[in-house]
Amino acid sequence: MEINIDRLKNSLERLGQIGFEESVGVTRLAYSKEYGQSVAFVEALFQEAGMTTHIDPVGNLIGRLAGASGKTIMIGSHIDTVPGGGIFDGCLGVMGGIECVRTLVENHYPNNHSIEVVAFIEEEGNVVGGTFGSKCLVGDPIDDSFASHFASAGLSFEAVRQARRDASSIGCYLELHIEQGGILDHEKIAIGVVEGIVGIHRYKIKIEGSENHAGTTPMYLRDDALVKASHIIGRLDTLVRETDRDLVGTVGVISIKPCAVNVIPGQAEFVIEMRDKNVANMDQVISRLQAEFSDYKMQMECILREGATAMDKNIQDTIRQSSQKRGHAYKNMYSGAGHDAINLAKVTPTGMIFIPSIKGVSHSIREKSDWTDVKNGTEVLLETIVALDRTINDKDGTVL
Amino acid sequence: MEINIDRLKNSLERLGQIGFEESVGVTRLAYSKEYGQSVAFVEALFQEAGMTTHIDPVGNLIGRLAGASGKTIMIGSHIDTVPGGGIFDGCLGVMGGIECVRTLVENHYPNNHSIEVVAFIEEEGNVVGGTFGSKCLVGDPIDDSFASHFASAGLSFEAVRQARRDASSIGCYLELHIEQGGILDHEKIAIGVVEGIVGIHRYKIKIEGSENHAGTTPMYLRDDALVKASHIIGRLDTLVRETDRDLVGTVGVISIKPCAVNVIPGQAEFVIEMRDKNVANMDQVISRLQAEFSDYKMQMECILREGATAMDKNIQDTIRQSSQKRGHAYKNMYSGAGHDAINLAKVTPTGMIFIPSIKGVSHSIREKSDWTDVKNGTEVLLETIVALDRTINDKDGTVL
Repeated sequence: MEINIDRLKNSLERLGQIGFEESVGVTRLAYSKEYGQSVAFVEALFQEAGMTTHIDPVGNLIGRLAGASGKTIMIGSHIDTVPGGGIFDGCLGVMGGIECVRTLVENHYPNNHSIEVVAFIEEEGNVVGGTFGSKCLVGDPIDDSFASHFASAGLSFEAVRQARRDASSIGCYLELHIEQGGILDHEKIAIGVVEGIVGIHRYKIKIEGSENHAGTTPMYLRDDALVKASHIIGRLDTLVRETDRDLVGTVGVISIKPCAVNVIPGQAEFVIEMRDKNVANMDQVISRLQAEFSDYKMQMECILREGATAMDKNIQDTIRQSSQKRGHAYKNMYSGAGHDAINLAKVTPTGMIFIPSIKGVSHSIREKSDWTDVKNGTEVLLETIVALDRTINDKDGTVL
Repeated sequence: MEINIDRLKNSLERLGQIGFEESVGVTRLAYSKEYGQSVAFVEALFQEAGMTTHIDPVGNLIGRLAGASGKTIMIGSHIDTVPGGGIFDGCLGVMGGIECVRTLVENHYPNNHSIEVVAFIEEEGNVVGGTFGSKCLVGDPIDDSFASHFASAGLSFEAVRQARRDASSIGCYLELHIEQGGILDHEKIAIGVVEGIVGIHRYKIKIEGSENHAGTTPMYLRDDALVKASHIIGRLDTLVRETDRDLVGTVGVISIKPCAVNVIPGQAEFVIEMRDKNVANMDQVISRLQAEFSDYKMQMECILREGATAMDKNIQDTIRQSSQKRGHAYKNMYSGAGHDAINLAKVTPTGMIFIPSIKGVSHSIREKSDWTDVKNGTEVLLETIVALDRTINDKDGTVL
């Protein structure tokens, strides 16, 4: 069975026009007018592919191709975007899923399992909170910070409760996604077999110095909060590189007070974010910073501590075999970004397939993937669906 | 002759009430209602001290004690403040000048020269531009950036022209000021004999990096603009300390783009300010930074290049002798801050006397000087006025 890359390209490009603005990119925030337009567009595609559709109480759009077993092979991702995003992030997983179903139907493939393609709402977290739609579907507890935005999105706790899906009906979950990093592109490898999604730790750092006149305070009488912050930021970069090749560490926000050209900064605040599959590496870097800069008046507050999520080993094997069968090189890798798959992995065997992002760029109008890579990734997804569909557990009809 | 420190303290404290706000400090911006109140208060003090007064077309307040010579010994500083400033910065020079005149008059001192005390308007540059009043008085060219604020302050080019004073009428200029740095306080020295006012260079630095996902971009594929900026800021601090003990260098403002916790900074902008009497030191540091960081995509734009201003050597000698006569230890030093004296030095022999600032703090509600130091500084000012008044040039009646 061969997928139709021209049709897939056409679908992705047409979807990418909804909310597109020249030199800005695609802006389709969940619950916006543009988002509604994209749901209508995708719902029509589901129906063209031969699926029944429904939208759940929080806004997840679901297409279903019924099979013999009550268990479902769920394929998903999202069609909301960040402000000024690209046409692949999220959309590839949904459009790729539809293309696979179309190909199966066209080839009269007798699916044992039901196959569902889900466009989860609000993965990007611009409106309510990140991966909101998939959290609701698996019944993950919703933070208060999410609930505070319910009114503006027309949501209610009742809707959240109703969106919860019986996990026993889901046999497995698959997500095809662009890497959003530059590793596959850099190494010219077609397929990333995702072993897991990294954990994230964030620390808010506050450094006190002594605000003073930049002209009249000699260097030996200074306590410059920005100079101290600079030493920590420079050292963090080195420590992260030395600790583990898979560890990443970033300071993406910084502010100083009073922030005047002729005043020595009296205060600096910034956030350290680290991601790794191995939590110990992150803890080690923080301990080192605390030890090395113990003479700085530094307050460190951990504001996020999320563990890593492992992908199902059998599904990983299936993806590797599917890549080999199609003749595509693959690389086992962790995802540095969060995905709806984190939530699904809590209730069902879950796997992710990555394709290369050119220069690793995402969340940008410059986000791009080669159509050949799109084709290859979708082929591997199709091959994986078929392989999993055939792996029927005789006892209860579950996948694997 | 002895000055009356209680009277001076009372004047400074009463002036310090105008525009004072609890836990904020004194806010008396030039041309504000509060500034008008302070002018009325000081004008009354001038008159009590036996001086005639007038306000020039741009708002400089001038008190005059006529003498035999048409040449004037001018004593000055300013009574405007930064938002949330202290009670000494500027005000000490004006109130100290009045106290000296009062003491001379009470002691029936027969002044050869006219003595004027000037409260220059808008030294702080919050409204029109720094040292605006003294620029006008000496006829220094006014920047376009100043003129753009004329309307809001009720000013005109005609007023600026009319405020220009015939420089030949000014025999010399003296300014008593708090150090605004911590050197005298740190070394427990009563008097700073100002040798000059440092030059200032400012450079706007723009660093390009590559904006990217903070989770998915491995360390070896990153080009982080903030990490690069941190290396430069840390190195600047070291280079400045190594180059010259008198050189200071500061990064007081910094901003990064896009400034999101999970995005690698793609751009960093900051301003390097350096001050030194020796311009070559500043040029040397910039050259070193350019050489050491030549592989960074760094744009450097010089946005300010002001040379140093020397104080008159004879007046410096007179201040030193006056300090010795009164038994106060002194230190020869450069001013790291700008003052009205920079403008006066362009047209007349100029000298400055510094007293200690506790912990070097100024432009703050915490700005403070010991009353003993206020007394000592004012005594030295008085002694200097008398010494200069006696040094009559027989030919044309000029001071020195």
